[in-house]
Amino acid sequence: MAKEKRVEQITDMEVDFAQWYTDICRKAELVEYASVKGFTILRPYGYAIWENMQRIMDAEFKKTGHENVAMPVLIPESLLKKEGELVNGFAPEVAWVTQGGSEELEERLAFRPTSETMFCDHWSRVLHSYRELPMLYNQWCSVIRWEKTTRPFLRSREFWWQEGHTIHETAEEAQAETEQQLNCYADFFENVLAIPVVRGRKTDKEKFAGAEATYTVECLMKDHKALQGATSHYFGDKFSRAYDVTFTGRDNSWGSTTRMIGAVIMAHGDNSGLVLPPRIAPIQVVVVPVAMHKEGVLDKARELEAALKAAGVRVTLDDSDNSLGWKCAQYEMKGVPLRVELGPRDIENGVCVAVRRDSGEKTTVPLAELTQRVPELLDAVQKGLYEKAKLNLEEHIFAAHSIEEARALQEEHGGFIKTMWCGELACETAMKEQAGMSSRCLPFEQEQLDTVCACCGKPAKQMIYWGVAY
Amino acid sequence: MAKEKRVEQITDMEVDFAQWYTDICRKAELVEYASVKGFTILRPYGYAIWENMQRIMDAEFKKTGHENVAMPVLIPESLLKKEGELVNGFAPEVAWVTQGGSEELEERLAFRPTSETMFCDHWSRVLHSYRELPMLYNQWCSVIRWEKTTRPFLRSREFWWQEGHTIHETAEEAQAETEQQLNCYADFFENVLAIPVVRGRKTDKEKFAGAEATYTVECLMKDHKALQGATSHYFGDKFSRAYDVTFTGRDNSWGSTTRMIGAVIMAHGDNSGLVLPPRIAPIQVVVVPVAMHKEGVLDKARELEAALKAAGVRVTLDDSDNSLGWKCAQYEMKGVPLRVELGPRDIENGVCVAVRRDSGEKTTVPLAELTQRVPELLDAVQKGLYEKAKLNLEEHIFAAHSIEEARALQEEHGGFIKTMWCGELACETAMKEQAGMSSRCLPFEQEQLDTVCACCGKPAKQMIYWGVAY
Repeated sequence: MAKEKRVEQITDMEVDFAQWYTDICRKAELVEYASVKGFTILRPYGYAIWENMQRIMDAEFKKTGHENVAMPVLIPESLLKKEGELVNGFAPEVAWVTQGGSEELEERLAFRPTSETMFCDHWSRVLHSYRELPMLYNQWCSVIRWEKTTRPFLRSREFWWQEGHTIHETAEEAQAETEQQLNCYADFFENVLAIPVVRGRKTDKEKFAGAEATYTVECLMKDHKALQGATSHYFGDKFSRAYDVTFTGRDNSWGSTTRMIGAVIMAHGDNSGLVLPPRIAPIQVVVVPVAMHKEGVLDKARELEAALKAAGVRVTLDDSDNSLGWKCAQYEMKGVPLRVELGPRDIENGVCVAVRRDSGEKTTVPLAELTQRVPELLDAVQKGLYEKAKLNLEEHIFAAHSIEEARALQEEHGGFIKTMWCGELACETAMKEQAGMSSRCLPFEQEQLDTVCACCGKPAKQMIYWGVAY
Repeated sequence: MAKEKRVEQITDMEVDFAQWYTDICRKAELVEYASVKGFTILRPYGYAIWENMQRIMDAEFKKTGHENVAMPVLIPESLLKKEGELVNGFAPEVAWVTQGGSEELEERLAFRPTSETMFCDHWSRVLHSYRELPMLYNQWCSVIRWEKTTRPFLRSREFWWQEGHTIHETAEEAQAETEQQLNCYADFFENVLAIPVVRGRKTDKEKFAGAEATYTVECLMKDHKALQGATSHYFGDKFSRAYDVTFTGRDNSWGSTTRMIGAVIMAHGDNSGLVLPPRIAPIQVVVVPVAMHKEGVLDKARELEAALKAAGVRVTLDDSDNSLGWKCAQYEMKGVPLRVELGPRDIENGVCVAVRRDSGEKTTVPLAELTQRVPELLDAVQKGLYEKAKLNLEEHIFAAHSIEEARALQEEHGGFIKTMWCGELACETAMKEQAGMSSRCLPFEQEQLDTVCACCGKPAKQMIYWGVAY
């Protein structure tokens, strides 16, 4: 028999949120550090979450006519440099290949930090006529950005992502695509990750290098810091001009990354560990037998597992020799949405006990109703997580009318601070310097909080959201 | 209206097989060359074939308990060098990252040519006990090998693959895994790609750098050259010793690549273009309306498309203004397994005409039976391709009893030449130098062709297959 395993402990989020986060990443076996500085390994459980995210997003992309492709991972320096703003934005973070086998390369090659240049170069070679438009492409791959400080999922030198790249005949079509994909991300965050978002446009200061406009979905973590969820960029005709596409198309790109796993941890996790929305959980239900060695218990537990599997639930049975306490703690750490306990007395009574990870709520479920009730309970967890996160967001949006007030609100409550803004970079810089907040977005849903800019007192153009961001 | 498009022409395979191959790669829109020498782009149609292959293989891997992970793409030189044979095997082909952002790296980093080193290093950090074994991991990614000459799918500097890596407690378990995965590949080739294979073991000369044993599935192309389909390696305890795993585990790795798309082209293609096995075809059926602008034709064609889609068939309707001739040629080039033609007279008679891509055979199908008959016809194409490829294989295996005879048979017929072999490297080298053939494998199904080695006349140990390989 295995010796009693120690229940893993993590730091409380109220004590040290950053350490709590790292503890979950490690103890839930999502990632491990690699022997290369700043790089991480996605372990099976972390990767399975990413696979579920990929599967759902990929199907959505395909519904709207997008096709997957694979572009080379290395980009010649001269090609990368054709669009000046892009390369200026990424140059300090590029990893360079300078040797191939024994040969010193004549021109160094960039490990892609993003692939706009490759897509445009490809289009310049294969496109002959407007009739072939639009081209709606997507790529799942990893990219490298040589960050100085790194944190699992949130900022690492290599990360996994999808990058959509499309080219259209007219500006209107291209902008419609940018918007469609932003909404696709927003729906994914809200309906799948159970994280409510604020949709809006980035300021010129915060937009993507080379983009004419960047749109974003912004979300709020449990420590009331902001996190940029995913972005969609409109480039106008800049790239197709720079890369000599034979006519002037309008390009977009849009991307989302493994950072979304970080968002899930910080939006839903608690002091017992990870809490996963059922729709992306690798294990949705764990069956834990109580007094497992009593006659009939394990057989009945296997029956439940098989019935749930047949009903399309991602279920696992833990029939290991570990203690009941260890098992409960372990699956809580891993964020499994529902634990089904089954002991000799339950069997006598023809029931089992379902325990929700999000609320701890216990429900006695007649065995005959299990395959109907479990999906309902999973839906309830999915909705419960969203509602809780929505409350956290709504309770942490504060209106301010001066930098000083904004600073004080941020210090006291965190969250998003909304103010009116004149549109000037100087005011954005002032907010950063005096209140420590960057602009998060110009929300699509505007409000008239005031007539003047909170920073300079000149006439205001729009409402803007500020925050301390990951 | 679009002007009449020119039907794309390709070189006949009998005239120039290599050019025929390249023509298909380009004209069927599978790949395009990138602006980086030796690198290719997988275009949507090529990538969709790869996605189908991935989906089917991934499900098989998971059935036997394998889990996906993601390892860093860059490997420190010192880590790569820990297992001497491996690095000696790959060093001449490694692409090196020497700069990260503005910083010159202290130690250069290899773009992974394969990831044994990363997996073993990871295990040395996370494994504490035999009890945690086996670990059954797989990774889908791209790798770089700095080849001098390249050809789409067959040999390119970057290619896409899966690499399985497993660690076990005992040599027996590890060897069982190597064998299981080789059989998994063999089944995939035969049942999905419709390509019959010869299973066997590689000689020491041809085995993977650092492996104790390499197993392979070998197949035969239409030009009667051999192609190594996929390989499975047993490492014994070499890696776990080299990488300081806290106890001595036994490792395996096994891999298959986008080269399989090249195998499909050369195993099934013809002078009209690509021929795809239905199980991996992105489009299984194309519905082509005849006299499309006659009343009712397009409506009926849309009805057929919807009915087939509902029946789970990957179907598309071409309602473009291109001519019927162009459409037929285009979908033949793209290897679509079944074309369904439907004109006004067919509609009157309540039928349509199904044309098989593999044989050109036409079948008149009552519309009421379409959703039942199409899957049957697709099965027939799948089987037909396999049978044809099997005949090609069986008719191109020749027994020889001397190097001279082997050379003559290869020159006249191509294919696999089987001989007895003493097991000595000198004889393998002699066959290469005098008959231009490398050893392909020592087949699991052995025959006693002779008592002595065909090369040196000394007592023979085993039967061996020779061939000219891609």
